[in-house]
Amino acid sequence: MRLCVLGAGAVGSAVVELAAEHGHVVTGFADSESAVVDADGIDADAVLSKKHADGVVGDGDPESVFDADYDVLVEATPTTLGDAEPGFSHVERALTDDRDVVLANKGPVAERYADLRALEAESEGTVQFEAAVGGAIPVLSTISDLGAPHVTAARGVLNGTANFVLSRMAAEGLDYEHVLAEAQDLGVAEADPTFDVDGIDAALKFVILANVLSDGETEYALDDAEVEGIRNVPGTALDLAAEDGRTVRLIGEATADGVRVAPRLIPQGSTLSVTGTQNIVQLETKHAGQLNISGRGAGGPETATAVLSDVSRLE
Amino acid sequence: MRLCVLGAGAVGSAVVELAAEHGHVVTGFADSESAVVDADGIDADAVLSKKHADGVVGDGDPESVFDADYDVLVEATPTTLGDAEPGFSHVERALTDDRDVVLANKGPVAERYADLRALEAESEGTVQFEAAVGGAIPVLSTISDLGAPHVTAARGVLNGTANFVLSRMAAEGLDYEHVLAEAQDLGVAEADPTFDVDGIDAALKFVILANVLSDGETEYALDDAEVEGIRNVPGTALDLAAEDGRTVRLIGEATADGVRVAPRLIPQGSTLSVTGTQNIVQLETKHAGQLNISGRGAGGPETATAVLSDVSRLE
Repeated sequence: MRLCVLGAGAVGSAVVELAAEHGHVVTGFADSESAVVDADGIDADAVLSKKHADGVVGDGDPESVFDADYDVLVEATPTTLGDAEPGFSHVERALTDDRDVVLANKGPVAERYADLRALEAESEGTVQFEAAVGGAIPVLSTISDLGAPHVTAARGVLNGTANFVLSRMAAEGLDYEHVLAEAQDLGVAEADPTFDVDGIDAALKFVILANVLSDGETEYALDDAEVEGIRNVPGTALDLAAEDGRTVRLIGEATADGVRVAPRLIPQGSTLSVTGTQNIVQLETKHAGQLNISGRGAGGPETATAVLSDVSRLE
Repeated sequence: MRLCVLGAGAVGSAVVELAAEHGHVVTGFADSESAVVDADGIDADAVLSKKHADGVVGDGDPESVFDADYDVLVEATPTTLGDAEPGFSHVERALTDDRDVVLANKGPVAERYADLRALEAESEGTVQFEAAVGGAIPVLSTISDLGAPHVTAARGVLNGTANFVLSRMAAEGLDYEHVLAEAQDLGVAEADPTFDVDGIDAALKFVILANVLSDGETEYALDDAEVEGIRNVPGTALDLAAEDGRTVRLIGEATADGVRVAPRLIPQGSTLSVTGTQNIVQLETKHAGQLNISGRGAGGPETATAVLSDVSRLE
């Protein structure tokens, strides 16, 4: 497949780096300021070196990337809320041109799901977005194979930063501010950790799951989710939980009742009590009990692997 | 899709029961003594009641089931070793007629993988067999999406009976004979538990995983596996393990070095230490770290769900 990759952060760059290993060719690659297009396939090493050295991937106008000959648009620009722009317009353009789309960007599927499906219905192309939910974890493909009507709920831990902070608070008896600073030093938390510690990132992922599980019956967006983050979880709460054989995790759920994300008490050592930056999703199925899928929920190569798995499902 | 279902045990019967809910029609259904064929779809309730009351699904000769108009053969007869007959011949017949095949029967994919792939190469039909490895757990579809060359090893617990026995021995401090008798009373272990407690069932599943991961480079069969069961695990070993924060599980692995199944010491509460009849598989990937998938590894509706997910992937 010929890929056109938008976004040159960790995920987009890793897609460009790993595409050849999966048998694909990248014919277009753009960051917010520039683009490089080559019908024979761009030179991944050279382009990534240029990005590293000069801060840009090429010399072309970013818009010129749509002139590339491509089969699949990989949308890996940063997630934005509300109108989900500019990601949404990128997707619209590709679908209007009857191309397939693989999203790592959560915005269009979390905030404008019905608009997206309407565009897809008019297009020869289809939209996939495994990478938007839990990085490397194959959640959406599993739901697709089971059939959404056969999955009654999804529950789990889908933000590695918040999970790291809670795991460390419990293991070391440290308070939130202390552990957050450590996580920032380690690069696990960003300088502005709002998205992660306030539960917004996790909520977006469970909104996407709710949209997929509802199969078009109800549309969900971030505004529909009940969200509580971990900022106000005191270290003492974790100490008390531990005395009772329990711990606290930022648990999200997508059920017929909607989307909720909040810190919850769960038994230590239980399936949901993953540690560090691990993610986990539990799917409740009608006839096959509970399925648990866990792994790395973030990271460039991990998320790029989910993107490339989506590409392979389009073939 | 029109399904022809061979085998009227727990799995075959559950496929017949659940097919309509997944949008499929069963046009043929056979047990070892009889068959029922109806181009408009058999009456699932009536046929399953007849099986329950009379011990047979219909009045026709079992062979007549191949006269059904069908798109997908579901092979759910009991697993046999060596030549994997009669399952292998059933699959051969369907592929020769250019039909797709979905296997719950482990024999043909564990014991005659190269023969099977050779038949598939000559056919318009394709072969799927998620249900043969870990019941409801989506292991093979995950490997397929990642691409076999990107998965370097599979490891885990794929026999619920052995896992139930080891979990109970550790939790209750009882010895093997005691817990086995209890498992037989509960219907978790069969009257002849050899296949499960001697590790053969788990080994067949890891042989299948090895065949899939090797992607045609090396063919594996049960004879190639190093297998040790749980019969000789003394209760005292579990006590000693517990004092050290560890426990014993029947762990299998499929790596570039081949297939091994044996009781192993693992940390209590670690990802692989699933309890009861749960199954778990860990996949080591090249770029996405470790993926863990757990759930119910056996049971009629659970395994039938895997069969019907395979059918949906054929569409």
